[in-house]
Amino acid sequence: MTTSQNRHIAIVGAGLVGMGWAIVFARAGCEVCVYDASPELLAGLPDKLAGSLADLHEFGLIDAPEPIAARIRIATSLAEAVRNASYVQESILERVNVKQALYRELDGLIDDDAIVGSSSSGIPSSEFTEGLSIAPRCLVAHPVNPPYLMPVVELVPAEWTHPEVLDRAHALMTQVGQHPIRVSREVQGFILNRLQGVLLREAWALYDEGYCSLADIDTTISKGLGMRWSFMGPFETIDLNAPGGIADYAHRLGGLYRDIAAERTDFASWSDALIQRAEYERRAALPLENLGERSKWRDRRLMALAAHQNEQET
Amino acid sequence: MTTSQNRHIAIVGAGLVGMGWAIVFARAGCEVCVYDASPELLAGLPDKLAGSLADLHEFGLIDAPEPIAARIRIATSLAEAVRNASYVQESILERVNVKQALYRELDGLIDDDAIVGSSSSGIPSSEFTEGLSIAPRCLVAHPVNPPYLMPVVELVPAEWTHPEVLDRAHALMTQVGQHPIRVSREVQGFILNRLQGVLLREAWALYDEGYCSLADIDTTISKGLGMRWSFMGPFETIDLNAPGGIADYAHRLGGLYRDIAAERTDFASWSDALIQRAEYERRAALPLENLGERSKWRDRRLMALAAHQNEQET
Repeated sequence: MTTSQNRHIAIVGAGLVGMGWAIVFARAGCEVCVYDASPELLAGLPDKLAGSLADLHEFGLIDAPEPIAARIRIATSLAEAVRNASYVQESILERVNVKQALYRELDGLIDDDAIVGSSSSGIPSSEFTEGLSIAPRCLVAHPVNPPYLMPVVELVPAEWTHPEVLDRAHALMTQVGQHPIRVSREVQGFILNRLQGVLLREAWALYDEGYCSLADIDTTISKGLGMRWSFMGPFETIDLNAPGGIADYAHRLGGLYRDIAAERTDFASWSDALIQRAEYERRAALPLENLGERSKWRDRRLMALAAHQNEQET
Repeated sequence: MTTSQNRHIAIVGAGLVGMGWAIVFARAGCEVCVYDASPELLAGLPDKLAGSLADLHEFGLIDAPEPIAARIRIATSLAEAVRNASYVQESILERVNVKQALYRELDGLIDDDAIVGSSSSGIPSSEFTEGLSIAPRCLVAHPVNPPYLMPVVELVPAEWTHPEVLDRAHALMTQVGQHPIRVSREVQGFILNRLQGVLLREAWALYDEGYCSLADIDTTISKGLGMRWSFMGPFETIDLNAPGGIADYAHRLGGLYRDIAAERTDFASWSDALIQRAEYERRAALPLENLGERSKWRDRRLMALAAHQNEQET
């Protein structure tokens, strides 16, 4: 197998996610080559990149932005982007037929040992790699946006993905400072969105039944559970919450949790009527025209949090 | 109604939770009087208090510890503790009969307008206040431990709790720097543990079915979802995750989440076999003898996080 030295990372798709990946790899010292079918997106990339790098620098998350920006170049064709790339991160539109078309093209273009990771947040890679010669070297590498601030990456193989490919993707992600997790096989929503989905479902139900407001549910997480979960996961949390560890905790509280779950078999969450009520409450708290500004606040908070966590972990 | 000026806060139960509450109220300038039926617990309190205050001081979360400690005195009887108290925070053992006995005693002791908030994490107050003359002035005020670091407080009235009592408890908690939420009526597990419970249930299921390790589930939260949730809740998170806000998000992703929920009607979580596997994995990662040390790490991380959040919010 060719080593990855002197070979670059290709990013296909230059939207927010693709740009985020370019920063992740370039920040770690990799040479990065970005391609997008839209010349407008590519043309706008350097300015957007400069903005994000300036923010990261301001929060102490990177040293000088220029050397990082200098490692990111733009390709004028897909073939140019992936030639001599050891790894391709695909971050194009979340549509099966669009991804299928791209992967058919990649099949004739990428190096013999190159791996393709898809940023797909919902579509398993088996739906767009079946029958291709590169299929054993394709998998999902699902980030949280932006990946340079939230480092988890879900690595999800299709049934035909070669195990060694999963290992190499895991090693690469670790090497560039991400926190990859190994999912053994495809599952709808992967891990992250399944966990988010079940929490939201119960939250919708409590709101629907009038137990409390959306804002109070948000407070319960942000001023309570979410604080612990931002540096430990839910299992380490309960492991430390009983004198005898996780088994002790489970024996004390398992019954309560089982009873709670048993109540919720027939709740129809995400109904239109419920969404309308929620929309009304959220828009009263945050008018739609302020959504962009609040999103910038979120991004700054995430950067400050990442800086805080880096400081804690070193 | 008597104003609360020159009246103190009584803390009944001097374990970890009671001590935490004493710090919350004294830190905010209230005079606090603590009682516990165990003389040993009371005798050990000043040292433990000094330790916690020193930690808070080290992390810049309080100025000098001494004036705070000076506002916390120890009572030698329940009657002495609650006399002239405007608010009583009960933090005794989580057993119905033990709480019932205490509330019967309190019925003859507390001031005519005093409120009693219970730290109960699972037992609704209706189970230990029924029939008492003070019942309309009792409610659950459930904290996360320690309350001086994680400020959410779930205020849960029984059906006979007077609405004005809920308002006063809400105002008091806000005044001392906590983040109270109003729960409209009793519900098993209140809000916080219901949300924790459903996330854990899905996490157990994914683990049980071999999709990934406990450690990878923890990473998914701590390096992903938990980062956002530590300063926004789940609803604000999705409100900012679609260009059109929460309704836009719900229409895009509601279907996926509904499908995920529909799969999980018959999963028996918290089974003994599953807990044993989890115990094995956790003990390999963290031997039981290191649990205490790791808990201290958690407390330091929480303090650093609280200091970071204070800085961000001012």
